[in-house]
This record gives sequence, structure tokens and C-alpha cells, in this order.
Amino acid sequence: MSGLPKRVHIVEEGPREGFQSEPPGIAVADKVRFIEALAETGIREIDCASFVNQKVLPQMADAEEIARTIRRRPDVAYGCLWLNNNGFLRARASGLTLQALTSGSASDTFLMRNNRRSPEEQLASQRQLRRLYSESGLGGGPVYLFTAFGCNYEGEIPIQKVMRRMGELIAVCEEADAPPTCLYLCDTVGAADPGLVRRLVSGVQDRWPDYPVALHLHDTRGLGVANAMAGLELGVSRFDASCGGLGGCPFAGNSAAAGNIATEELVLLCERLGIETGIALEPLIEAARLAREIVGHPLSGKLANAGVFPFRT
Amino acid sequence: MSGLPKRVHIVEEGPREGFQSEPPGIAVADKVRFIEALAETGIREIDCASFVNQKVLPQMADAEEIARTIRRRPDVAYGCLWLNNNGFLRARASGLTLQALTSGSASDTFLMRNNRRSPEEQLASQRQLRRLYSESGLGGGPVYLFTAFGCNYEGEIPIQKVMRRMGELIAVCEEADAPPTCLYLCDTVGAADPGLVRRLVSGVQDRWPDYPVALHLHDTRGLGVANAMAGLELGVSRFDASCGGLGGCPFAGNSAAAGNIATEELVLLCERLGIETGIALEPLIEAARLAREIVGHPLSGKLANAGVFPFRT
Repeated sequence: MSGLPKRVHIVEEGPREGFQSEPPGIAVADKVRFIEALAETGIREIDCASFVNQKVLPQMADAEEIARTIRRRPDVAYGCLWLNNNGFLRARASGLTLQALTSGSASDTFLMRNNRRSPEEQLASQRQLRRLYSESGLGGGPVYLFTAFGCNYEGEIPIQKVMRRMGELIAVCEEADAPPTCLYLCDTVGAADPGLVRRLVSGVQDRWPDYPVALHLHDTRGLGVANAMAGLELGVSRFDASCGGLGGCPFAGNSAAAGNIATEELVLLCERLGIETGIALEPLIEAARLAREIVGHPLSGKLANAGVFPFRT
Repeated sequence: MSGLPKRVHIVEEGPREGFQSEPPGIAVADKVRFIEALAETGIREIDCASFVNQKVLPQMADAEEIARTIRRRPDVAYGCLWLNNNGFLRARASGLTLQALTSGSASDTFLMRNNRRSPEEQLASQRQLRRLYSESGLGGGPVYLFTAFGCNYEGEIPIQKVMRRMGELIAVCEEADAPPTCLYLCDTVGAADPGLVRRLVSGVQDRWPDYPVALHLHDTRGLGVANAMAGLELGVSRFDASCGGLGGCPFAGNSAAAGNIATEELVLLCERLGIETGIALEPLIEAARLAREIVGHPLSGKLANAGVFPFRT
């Protein structure tokens, strides 16, 4: 375990990716309450909203209102997501924390079905966005490669293809003199396993040693925490996760909307391995229970149901 | 990953440990249907019943009837559990597969609360049982050390204490000229993490290199599969698991009855790592769905909800 990082940065995805997977109708007040509870746990980056088409994703129609309403701590970044220029301009106007996101997909079929773009169109849109970032004074930001571990249409993606798509996104950033701050390998549909994580993470580390690898993992098939462990052992120190494992449809028999790894389980894993996260486990578990109350159904994370060890009645 | 075994033997605990954690009232016909479905997946050892006090555990009052009713495949071992001489004599009469079980607990408090015995009384009872095994023509069998990774009363148990209790159980077997077939480290309450698994498994391997280590893991806090991975990397090739993750009270907020790691998630992990289990994933997932139907509530395993990758609608 010599490769373990000393400290891990966790980006909380529950309020954005999690609530986005729920049916519309969660009250802004509940979303805000959850975000504010998360900010008290020691989490330093919270993804709060998506600035996307409200017709496609009515769950996120309240993005501006959330941005206006949350009481902010000065030491927390309240982030957000967008997919095109218009979304970025809304995000910029909202006052939420901006990061220069560049994204693409290892699976071309997934990209077409999810974003309605060919790989070329995706790259063109990312170049446009990157220009807008530079005009807005934003430097380098994270690169996200979706379906890096496979997708439901194409199955596993050959590693050469994954590397090629990653390289194209890195080039978009480098051409704009804004080298990436990190390279996200996203297990969008929960297709990874610890062996694949090792092969892909070390492949990207070897090819682009200057850019740290980050992981966005889903726990669709129960291997999510083992996959995170494989990443930690290669020194990965930035992870997305969602409190309570929000974001899944655990009992729908459908992996299309798979939950992220549960933030509290990743924090527990790190704590046990002597890795700092700056996040306190008990209030985080309370936040997961709040999330369960808000969505009104059980969540897929296990730790929030069991409580910390040793459990006392 | 050089330590990975080529083949892993999985003991299915669902019908015994899983159903035992459910409220009484599951029909014998349902239990039998589940056992028979499991036997068709390639699983070669199924724990079917407990021969214990029916007043304490009415869920297992049907042990004899189950033994009589199941249609048996010749290539499957249909095992069972007992805690004292009387239980063993009932098991012997039932015609189920007998293994010379020797058990104890790393936590003395757990032992007293769970089995109402002091460590000395436990050892005496195991010696008695071991004499009965020899009279019944049974050679060596597995040693089970409960709460090896900690318990809710004592928290983490010092490794020296764990090793001492394990040594006492091994001595019971060796004194009867029936050396153990394997040494189970049991994470009875879901207290383990991958670092602790490594320390404890390698500690036991170093001290007793002639006896293979086996793992009985619970996924109470979401680290179960990562813990199994840590075991696999040390060459552990025998695991208990329960189909669907049966055995937990996932939504009770109580870790007292924590679910085993889900058999299908362990099989998926092995499959992805190139380790043979002899078990077919799709019928195993069907068996997990049958278990969910029988108990009438969601189970904690995730793979059976999501389906295999790639998922197709």
C-alpha cells in the first residue's frame, strides 16, 4: 500500500448528480438544507446544480434559485455543471464556483445517445467552451472522460480508444494554454473492476505524468469501493462521490442511472487507511440520513444504515 | 496482484445465515426452492440449516424437514451448523454433509453475550465436540474465529489476542490428531477494512503456514468487497458469502445482524480478475432475485438489482 496518498480530496455529487436521478419535485428548501448540512461535515467541494435544458432535466430547473438561496461557507466551493455555452453563461451569472470543465466520452455511441453529438461535434463544442472560459478569465480545469470503463451500448472500450479520446480532450486544453488540473476517468455505468482501474489509471499516469488522475466511480454492481481502493493504491487523490450513495435506482433493476460510490464509505475507507479527507464521518452519516428522508426511499449506501463501528444500541 | 489464487471456493450462506436473520415464517418449500436454485449455479457448498435451540432461533426449527426435502445433486455439499453436542447429533441424523467445525471468538464479551460461555467453557465444549467428531469418523475440519476484526462491545481486538484465541482452537484440533482444513477469520459485525484484512490474514499465514486462511466477511459498512479483494491478493481462496447479500437488516439502522458479502458480487470480482469459481453469474443473479421475492423486501446486494454488465433494456 505504498502508493497511498496522504490526503484525498472528495467532491460531493449528491445534490447535483444524485437529486438529478430522482423524479422531479424535490423542494429547493430540501436541496439547500442538504447542501448546507454537507458543508458542515468538512467537505470542501459540493456539486450543487446543473445548468442544462429544463425540458430535458426538469429536476434542475431550480439551479439559479439554489445558487441564490444557499448560505455559503467561505471555505467551501459550491460547484455546478453545464454542457454547452448557454449553460456556462447561466452558471457564470449564478455566482456558483466555476471550474473550466472539458468533457468527452470514450464510447461514441453513449455520446450520441446522451449528448446527441458525434466525437467531432463534441470536440468542437469543447473548444468553443474553452474559448469562453479563457474570455471569462478561467485557467485550466478538470477533464472528464465519461464511460472510460465501458458503456451499456459498446461494452468494454479498448484501452487505446480510451487513451485517444482522453488525448483529444487534453489537446483542447493545451492548445488554449490552459493545461488540465486533473484527468477524470468516469465509470459512468458501473462497469469497472479493480483490475481495470489499475490498467487504465496506470496507463493514463504513464502517458500524462504531469496531470493527476481523478476517479468518478459508480457502485452499480457492488465493486465501487474496491475500485476506489485500487485507485488509492496508485496514488489517486481526487474522487467524486455522493452522500448516501444518492443517484442510483437501486431497486429499479436498471443500471442506466447508477449511484455514485457513497461519500461516507469512501471517507471510512480513507480513515481506516490513515488517509486524511478533512471530513467528519458522523455528521456525514447524518447528512446521508437527511438525504434518505428527502428522497423518501432507501439509498444504496450501507454505512448510513449500519452506523459507525462499534455500533452501540 | 501476483498473490491472486487461480481458483476460489465459495460457501453459500444464504439459506442458513441469511434466512436465520429474517423473521420466522419462511416456508420450507421456499427455502428448498432457493437451495435447489443455488445448486444449479455451480455453487458446490451450500449451508442449509442450523441445528440449534428452536426456542432461541425458531427460524431454524425446520432444519430436519429441509434436510429431508431438498433434492440433492451428487456434486454439491449441503452443509449445516451446530453449536453443541446435541446440535451435532441432530445434524448427523439429518443426513446433511458434516464438517468437523471448531469455533471460538476473539471477543470474550461477544462470546458471553452470544453463546453464554466464557473462553474456557467454549474451549471445553469444542474439545467435547471434537471427541464426538472423532467417534463419528470425522477428520479435520474448518476452524471459525468469530469477531476476528472486532465486535460492538470491545471494538477492535488487539492482533495478539486474536492470534491467541486462534491458537487455542488450532490446539483443540491438533491434540485430537485432526489438524484444521482451514482457518476462518470472521468479520461477524462488519468491522474490517482492507488494511486490517491484510495485517490479520498475513499474520495468521505467517504463524500457521500449513493451514489455509478463509474469510467470512460482512458488508455492513460497504467495505466488504474491498476486504475480499485484500484477501484475494494474499491468496485467500475460500470465502463464505450469501446470495443477494441476504442476512442483513439493511434499513434497520442496526448492525447487529449484518449481511454477508453478496455471493454474486464476489463471483463478479473473481470473474473480472480471471479467478475461477465454477459459478455462473446469470443464474446466481436469478437466485438472488428469488431470495428477494421470498423474504419480501429489498436485499443489500447491488449487482442483483443492476444486472450484469453491459446492461440491455
